[in-house]
Amino acid sequence: MQALKERIMRDGIHLGSGILKVDGFINHQVDAQLMDQCGREFARIFAGIGATKVLTAEISGIAPAVMTAFHMGLPVVYARKNKPITMPDQVYLTLAPSHTKGRMVELIVSPEYLAGGERVLIIDDFLASGATIAGLVRLGQAAGAKIVGIGTLIEKSFEGGRDLLTPLGIPIHSLVCITSMQNGEITFKE
Amino acid sequence: MQALKERIMRDGIHLGSGILKVDGFINHQVDAQLMDQCGREFARIFAGIGATKVLTAEISGIAPAVMTAFHMGLPVVYARKNKPITMPDQVYLTLAPSHTKGRMVELIVSPEYLAGGERVLIIDDFLASGATIAGLVRLGQAAGAKIVGIGTLIEKSFEGGRDLLTPLGIPIHSLVCITSMQNGEITFKE
Repeated sequence: MQALKERIMRDGIHLGSGILKVDGFINHQVDAQLMDQCGREFARIFAGIGATKVLTAEISGIAPAVMTAFHMGLPVVYARKNKPITMPDQVYLTLAPSHTKGRMVELIVSPEYLAGGERVLIIDDFLASGATIAGLVRLGQAAGAKIVGIGTLIEKSFEGGRDLLTPLGIPIHSLVCITSMQNGEITFKE
Repeated sequence: MQALKERIMRDGIHLGSGILKVDGFINHQVDAQLMDQCGREFARIFAGIGATKVLTAEISGIAPAVMTAFHMGLPVVYARKNKPITMPDQVYLTLAPSHTKGRMVELIVSPEYLAGGERVLIIDDFLASGATIAGLVRLGQAAGAKIVGIGTLIEKSFEGGRDLLTPLGIPIHSLVCITSMQNGEITFKE
């Protein structure tokens, strides 16, 4: 998606070690207009998959997932990383390594809001190692739901996430794909 | 706001001790259409305050704040509760007691995205004790910004948040106000 690509070129910061800082428009400050455009684009891409629910992970997946859900007319569930007191004792929980935290984090969904028979579209900000998204896939499968699509704003193809997820046979779409971040230069897939 | 009030009456769950569970449409599963309506309503209410930025706290403030920012054509910043590696060493940080966690949590904003001279509209899901919102006010003031409005989806007037915040002289608007949750019954302000 051209608008997102241009924004990354303008405001994305390569911090080294493959870390792309997009805190100015996605991860801390959010460009709500851009997220709306991204949500609209996901809704177009995934119009035909018959999704009944959008699933994401807190925190940075929430903005694009809410906008996607809005444009698809669906509810969105965000997996929690801490179990709040409002959640029942029996939950779906999986562990996923966090890129930015350097440790395993929990991903927790209440069975109240993810049921067997649901057709789930996973939306997240990054497809990097694919570990978070694989965790969301496991949560969906534990609930007996079918994962019918995976959409991410930014794919870093050099981190192998697509290779991890492709065997699942689920359609994967990224709005922008970065193939290399070497020597301080961000290279996009054409 | 009638739609939100009706949704609380239908799907809100009183867990006791003044805790209103709205996980089915705000705090875990999000009704994106309803959040869009709420954002539109905040944009209408706060149309004249000259805000330049929306500020909220992760996690549950994000959805209503993003929708509000979208309808106002503004960026939104969400205060982080953990400092990610992408954030600079020098930040604005304050502590606020968490209602649902039973301990103090950090609220952190990068100076990159909150500057002196900004006119900040604070949006959050609940106005209960007012502690989180007071923390956001302190962050804004530390940055030299002016807080020009406070909007929350649900006010629990019996928890005193408005009394805490009123001396600040900032316009406060809640879309729904609950005056009592005694004996399992939720009473709304007319």
